[in-house]
Amino acid sequence: MSPITFKVLKKNKDSRARLGRLTTPHGEVDTPIFMPVGTQATVKAISSKDLLASHAQIILANTYHLYLRPGHELIEKAGGLHAFMGWRRPILTDSGGFQVFSLAGLNKITEDGVRFQSHIDGSYHFFTPEKVMEIENSLGPDIIMAFDECTPYPCEFDYARRSMERTSRWLERCIATHQRPDEQGLFGIVQGSVYPELRARSVELTLSRDLPGYAVGGLSVGEPKEQMYEMMTATLPLMPEEKPRYLMGIGYPEDLIQGVKLGADMFDCVIPTRYGRTGTAWTRFGKLTVKNATYAEDFRPIDDQCSCYSCRNFTRAYIRHLFQVGEILAPHLTTIHNVHFFLSFMTDMRQAIAEERFIEWSQDFLKNYQPQSNLNKPE
Amino acid sequence: MSPITFKVLKKNKDSRARLGRLTTPHGEVDTPIFMPVGTQATVKAISSKDLLASHAQIILANTYHLYLRPGHELIEKAGGLHAFMGWRRPILTDSGGFQVFSLAGLNKITEDGVRFQSHIDGSYHFFTPEKVMEIENSLGPDIIMAFDECTPYPCEFDYARRSMERTSRWLERCIATHQRPDEQGLFGIVQGSVYPELRARSVELTLSRDLPGYAVGGLSVGEPKEQMYEMMTATLPLMPEEKPRYLMGIGYPEDLIQGVKLGADMFDCVIPTRYGRTGTAWTRFGKLTVKNATYAEDFRPIDDQCSCYSCRNFTRAYIRHLFQVGEILAPHLTTIHNVHFFLSFMTDMRQAIAEERFIEWSQDFLKNYQPQSNLNKPE
Repeated sequence: MSPITFKVLKKNKDSRARLGRLTTPHGEVDTPIFMPVGTQATVKAISSKDLLASHAQIILANTYHLYLRPGHELIEKAGGLHAFMGWRRPILTDSGGFQVFSLAGLNKITEDGVRFQSHIDGSYHFFTPEKVMEIENSLGPDIIMAFDECTPYPCEFDYARRSMERTSRWLERCIATHQRPDEQGLFGIVQGSVYPELRARSVELTLSRDLPGYAVGGLSVGEPKEQMYEMMTATLPLMPEEKPRYLMGIGYPEDLIQGVKLGADMFDCVIPTRYGRTGTAWTRFGKLTVKNATYAEDFRPIDDQCSCYSCRNFTRAYIRHLFQVGEILAPHLTTIHNVHFFLSFMTDMRQAIAEERFIEWSQDFLKNYQPQSNLNKPE
Repeated sequence: MSPITFKVLKKNKDSRARLGRLTTPHGEVDTPIFMPVGTQATVKAISSKDLLASHAQIILANTYHLYLRPGHELIEKAGGLHAFMGWRRPILTDSGGFQVFSLAGLNKITEDGVRFQSHIDGSYHFFTPEKVMEIENSLGPDIIMAFDECTPYPCEFDYARRSMERTSRWLERCIATHQRPDEQGLFGIVQGSVYPELRARSVELTLSRDLPGYAVGGLSVGEPKEQMYEMMTATLPLMPEEKPRYLMGIGYPEDLIQGVKLGADMFDCVIPTRYGRTGTAWTRFGKLTVKNATYAEDFRPIDDQCSCYSCRNFTRAYIRHLFQVGEILAPHLTTIHNVHFFLSFMTDMRQAIAEERFIEWSQDFLKNYQPQSNLNKPE
């Protein structure tokens, strides 16, 4: 029996948005959920106690990075990723399928796997479905992702088709080699670039195997937003009701709304952490580049309605000063705020779904929210 | 009446060590106390909640740095340093007398004050006792230090004498210009380089003014440790029983013991923060350079008897990995440990004084403690 179970608790009439509960060996997760990204066994710039304070339920870690440093054998010796990083709640690891194509040097793909160069020291490595399962089994997270090829954008139809079919064959090999099926749930990944017919075929191939969850990959890789939404619309409704649907690498608040509306349950993205440590806060009004000189004498919190540690205790002027003088507390406080914002945003969304007012809630949210603008008006 | 009062609660028979309580507008401080350094309005790499968790009672901030960035007027507008940095407990600011000589470019000293160049942009500035009081009055800490010249080591006798006498005249000017004597306590600073007779004369001149506290400055500036201890021995016993004695810029655990033994009550030093963020932890056994490869597979905490957040949750191997991959959590966790170590060390010291076993306690501590060695034995 799979260690990962999923229950749909509530469905809405006016959209595919749904409320669910994911059960894992390290506890339950309320869906729809956003997973902060902990690439190198830490969510950048914050600690596990900050994650707990933000009510994080599940985090993501990157197989590619952890394989390179400190190495999966070391993490296994430490008792697995949960023990190593001091995080006792659920963890999901990706498969490295995105990083070997986007981050690593010179890569060569064959039916067997991918040969790539480490982005750190240029050393050569070879990932196969079997190798990736070995790594993810060693790391020991609750949910492990199958090894896939994440095609870039743009991508020719023929290549996208061949790649998607290979990803499907790789999934078979992942299933065959997964050593801890009673402790870790393996999710399959739907690919197919921006071609609806390939997406549909990929869903068919992926769903032919009974897995505890299914993901949509290969989106938010550079395609126009309309095309991303089109693919979400073409893919998500084909996925089974009774299994969690994970929309990988997405996204911005407006994308999360769109994903939930189409029935997605799980999301991850580096936005809160990447923007946080480089000086941009996310709020219900949009981005606020708190490190800007505009905020030098702005003695309001990032968001006066936010209940995070940073907003309860510090002003924009203080955080701007910390960025200005290069203090570590600057990315720390801004990341605490951003992670809290994204997780509260999902909590609000779940509440709205529970009360069957998700569409209304999302319209209200988007009314105030300016995706492309900065909140540059000083007090 | 001074806003700073001091009460000696207990004296020991076998040393000058004493237990005291300092009362300030932002609360009480148990002495002997170590003050973590918050140079730029943050104790580097940790937040005020981490300081509270380590039971920090009072912190220090640097006038020179805050004058340059973000500027004392901005901090005054924010409601003072306590409000600006979200720290509601006592704060002490130094006078910039150390930084204008050690950090700033080309400085020129006259009777009037010191002309110096910013270490950030090379711009010219002029600090006088009057200017420094204006800055410290704007910053609004509980305790402000008089503007002094911190002589370098080595320093000719004649120069040390002239400088010490000028520092004493500057103290007069500080007293005359201090605008908030009912809200902020002004401490005078004893100088005199490594010359006992100058130290004695400086004590005389400084004590001729009734101030809420007195400090010993100009030590730990490069002189041999024996000479530093000699000056502490020559100076501290001359200082009044009923006032707090602050030994500036000191120090290492063995120096803190020495200072307390000679009757010092307050200390500050960048050791826990500077070492913490560069990968060295302090323990009851000495330094432990946790970022070293030695600890790559060491799954013990930094110190298994330490109760700090880092030691309760993370291993040397994990923290070493974080340093290795350049994660902000690395300096954060190591600094949390170090600040906790120094503050617990002082708590233990106070306990020992209360129980009249300070000498015994310090001998026990020094028996296990290796000032110069690393704890390099892996498990």
